[in-house]
Amino acid sequence: MFETAHEQSTAQPSPTATDLSNQHPSSESRLDPYSGNWTIFAPQRTERPDEFVDQAPTIKTDVACPFCRGNEAITPPAVWARHIPETARLFRNVTCCEEEEEPWSVRVVPNKYPAVGDLQSDSKTAFDSGAGRRDSGLFQSGCVSGGHEVIIESPRHFHSLTQLDIAEIDLVFQAYRDRIKHYRSIEGIQYINVFKNVGYDAGASLTHSHSQLVALNQIPRPVERIVERMSHHRASTGCCLRCDVIRAERKAKERMIACDETVIAYCPFASQLPMMVRVTTLEHQSHFENLDDRALESVSRMVFRVISWLEKIRPGTAYNYCLNTCPPGVNDPSDSFHWSIDIFPRMSHVAGFEWSSGCMINPVLPEAAAAMFRKCAAANSPRRR
Amino acid sequence: MFETAHEQSTAQPSPTATDLSNQHPSSESRLDPYSGNWTIFAPQRTERPDEFVDQAPTIKTDVACPFCRGNEAITPPAVWARHIPETARLFRNVTCCEEEEEPWSVRVVPNKYPAVGDLQSDSKTAFDSGAGRRDSGLFQSGCVSGGHEVIIESPRHFHSLTQLDIAEIDLVFQAYRDRIKHYRSIEGIQYINVFKNVGYDAGASLTHSHSQLVALNQIPRPVERIVERMSHHRASTGCCLRCDVIRAERKAKERMIACDETVIAYCPFASQLPMMVRVTTLEHQSHFENLDDRALESVSRMVFRVISWLEKIRPGTAYNYCLNTCPPGVNDPSDSFHWSIDIFPRMSHVAGFEWSSGCMINPVLPEAAAAMFRKCAAANSPRRR
Repeated sequence: MFETAHEQSTAQPSPTATDLSNQHPSSESRLDPYSGNWTIFAPQRTERPDEFVDQAPTIKTDVACPFCRGNEAITPPAVWARHIPETARLFRNVTCCEEEEEPWSVRVVPNKYPAVGDLQSDSKTAFDSGAGRRDSGLFQSGCVSGGHEVIIESPRHFHSLTQLDIAEIDLVFQAYRDRIKHYRSIEGIQYINVFKNVGYDAGASLTHSHSQLVALNQIPRPVERIVERMSHHRASTGCCLRCDVIRAERKAKERMIACDETVIAYCPFASQLPMMVRVTTLEHQSHFENLDDRALESVSRMVFRVISWLEKIRPGTAYNYCLNTCPPGVNDPSDSFHWSIDIFPRMSHVAGFEWSSGCMINPVLPEAAAAMFRKCAAANSPRRR
Repeated sequence: MFETAHEQSTAQPSPTATDLSNQHPSSESRLDPYSGNWTIFAPQRTERPDEFVDQAPTIKTDVACPFCRGNEAITPPAVWARHIPETARLFRNVTCCEEEEEPWSVRVVPNKYPAVGDLQSDSKTAFDSGAGRRDSGLFQSGCVSGGHEVIIESPRHFHSLTQLDIAEIDLVFQAYRDRIKHYRSIEGIQYINVFKNVGYDAGASLTHSHSQLVALNQIPRPVERIVERMSHHRASTGCCLRCDVIRAERKAKERMIACDETVIAYCPFASQLPMMVRVTTLEHQSHFENLDDRALESVSRMVFRVISWLEKIRPGTAYNYCLNTCPPGVNDPSDSFHWSIDIFPRMSHVAGFEWSSGCMINPVLPEAAAAMFRKCAAANSPRRR
């Protein structure tokens, strides 16, 4: 019933199909040296027609923002809060906030709807001893706990980090450092992740500028693989993989965005997502939380600048950033890890192919992305107050 | 300047924070035996407030649909086409379409904006011999090619597979089988992926019901890892991992959705995404393209039913499905692979934590998802024409 004659005849490339394949003879795939995954770069994909209108998401206006000043009672009590009085900004006078009623500039609270609960001594012991793992043959499960906090970046209903003062942004990064240190000091915490979701497409549920911290009593397997590859590179070359890449990127120049004495921003060679930017310190440093005040200031300024440029290039874009620091659960005697922040707008949805293959198709070459950022940087000096 | 006294005092759990953590003492993490990754299940996350309005995407109406009957000239010429005449549907008389002018029911064309170009003999050789890999120290790249096709599922401007006849859906799955066989026969093709993107959030750019096939001259690393784990299971137990899981799922019942003599549908124990459904054959079969007509019919009916239920549970939902067959580039003498189709609605966006950790947070337990599907299946018998 299903004849194959037609298929055989039409499966041969027709002249038009051949012309088409000659236009796109092959795409480039690039290896990410950290994860070992390949990304396919296909700039021709941006030319395809799109029936969907890229519309701004609608925001509910009847929801009381739990992060605004005055609504502190909606959230759990703060575990960290700092204030820069308006009159003292020039001098960077920061005060701690002893009571919830006191004014604050940055405030950290436990997430009211946590992905994981607090690490309790019982669950830690249960997990560590293996008793918490219910290994029912093919169905292995465990109790995952740790902590989940929200870093509220301003008492005002700002939607972007770039609406903040430089001094306030410094405070946000101080909060990251302090809260990572806090979780690192807790026995049983194996992994700490600080991240920011901005906009609907980036997975945010609230618009008030905020970031989050998740701490876990286990290291995710993909992170373990990255740690293993960085450790292998150190063992075989004697060098830190990230330090080697930074040297090579500075030499190659084409993916460089910006650099000062302390911090570098570049578009990674095998970026999984379009317009991804990596920010890290030039000097080797495995742990973000070990950065001194001066380096932390440089980092916060660079992140501020990259986001400013991104907002110029793609106004209203949804984006994420993620802070990767050496996980507490990693035994890293060779000091092979090197911290970084990855910043990436959400320009496309992860579709079926990417989900099932784990191989990303990126329509924007990092060289093109870096050129856009450099052009924007040249045209717009960062706003400073 | 940054006093720690306050932090130390407030970092101690306050009564409210303790109450909160007691409500959510710990989440459950589950191991996916195929990928080796853990998924965190956090049903409490669904309770969090959301400022964003879940709005239907806006569709442009001024775009001529390249997949509609009459617009064949917009696409490259068909490489596969079949027709079921209206009068012959009862008898399943399928004819091949020799000319583009002839009517068709399902039509396969090269993707006009391919992720990868056609596998040319030169690029294949270049890649195989390693000459195509430009290994510049830390910057390794290669030429990736193969094929990228679109399976147009109807000449009518339908948005859903469930608007098709059962006979037409059979034809779609026949197309999958034939085109996978075609690419398997090409030397140098290492990996074949058939997938479907429906709706804006699932990465679709056109609304006309269609699926896609991507063939590559390299196997993505995450797929290699799955193959390695399935092979390891076969070597250590003598059994196929998927067959073992199917037996365990049928015994456990709680994640089962539907089963007939040939095909099973269930929600995987460690589902990375909410409401994920896996469809596969009860009998061991590594290669989807080796299914006989009877098995293929059962598979297409099951997929149709699952999508019908999904559309009842979440009307207008964006979703993907992905067909995993044993990659041609895999040397699998122990026959350890077992094909499957994964169907998953796109209910949430992959946010910063998931991106950087590779660890998914799923707010819907597969047991709850399966119960929803079973309830829907009991209330709605599938539409049959």
